[in-house]
Amino acid sequence: MIEIPARRGKAVQVKKGQKVKVINTRGQQVVDTWVFNTADLREFMSMDHSRVAIGRIIPGIGDALVTNKRRPILTLVEDTSGGIHDTLFAACDRWRYEALGCAGYHDNCTDNLAAGLAALGLEPPETPAPLNLFMNIPVIDGNRVEVRPPVSTPGSYVTLRAEMDCIVAFSACPQDLVPINGLDMRPTEAHFELLD
Amino acid sequence: MIEIPARRGKAVQVKKGQKVKVINTRGQQVVDTWVFNTADLREFMSMDHSRVAIGRIIPGIGDALVTNKRRPILTLVEDTSGGIHDTLFAACDRWRYEALGCAGYHDNCTDNLAAGLAALGLEPPETPAPLNLFMNIPVIDGNRVEVRPPVSTPGSYVTLRAEMDCIVAFSACPQDLVPINGLDMRPTEAHFELLD
Repeated sequence: MIEIPARRGKAVQVKKGQKVKVINTRGQQVVDTWVFNTADLREFMSMDHSRVAIGRIIPGIGDALVTNKRRPILTLVEDTSGGIHDTLFAACDRWRYEALGCAGYHDNCTDNLAAGLAALGLEPPETPAPLNLFMNIPVIDGNRVEVRPPVSTPGSYVTLRAEMDCIVAFSACPQDLVPINGLDMRPTEAHFELLD
Repeated sequence: MIEIPARRGKAVQVKKGQKVKVINTRGQQVVDTWVFNTADLREFMSMDHSRVAIGRIIPGIGDALVTNKRRPILTLVEDTSGGIHDTLFAACDRWRYEALGCAGYHDNCTDNLAAGLAALGLEPPETPAPLNLFMNIPVIDGNRVEVRPPVSTPGSYVTLRAEMDCIVAFSACPQDLVPINGLDMRPTEAHFELLD
């Protein structure tokens, strides 16, 4: 079991066929997730291509998320979290926290992606729109989007199967100014496990 | 009045404060739209950042779309098309047409973006998720997405104001295998006009 520390990023090499189980340890923590083709980091999991492929804005069990070359890279195979995730919102970044009135540096998912990959000696070619696991952004009346606390519970998890050799990067989202990580607005750690 | 030829791309330099009027000449043509900061093409209009900024998946009048640095780049100031546009789907590309069973080359919006910029001596740093003007992709029951014909009519238009000096690129979407450009599935030309 590997920790994604509170407010931090972590990345891991995953072989085709291996599974990653992502555990919402405390229950209300959003985990931004990115996946890059190990052989070419410029090919990565893409939310705007995946929505076309799966015909939904929220992946369900059996759905294969695809890359910007429309190849399956990650399949959702298990989900005990309530099935609410987000594909619509960009990763938070320094500009987001500046806009929220934050003076000085604030941890953010964009920098966490870079740090997670840097620990493997890698650099992201850009910050793709992430799969925001456990994040609850309903589309109301077919248009309006709203930030709501996760519906997940402590210890609930999703399991994702790699469809190619890939680098999976996570960020335990450090957002503490809006209730994206629960009404307490207190970012926590999460965990993941590699399964063969 | 400048033509965006059927199945083709076209790009133009736009100064801060100028407006671009995009006309759906025949009424059922989707126009994929990208915007890049003239001073730094790596800063571009981003749908995943814009949805956070405007709190909607479809921009309405007065909404400012933002870049991947969360700065306003384009404001929707007028819309006679019925107000249905798409921010969820990736631009079509050769892999999309291969998946649809197309043998050999098919015109596509991704290549049209590159060709439109090449005509100005420029190269896109990547293919950002476009603002798909006139494209009708409803989100049903808060999750399912469906491809439907546009609701726009011949001669209807949107007007967009540039919030910084920028390059605006269009593609008259060449999709003729699904009814994204109307039930006839016949891609047509569209037009745009620069207004001071």
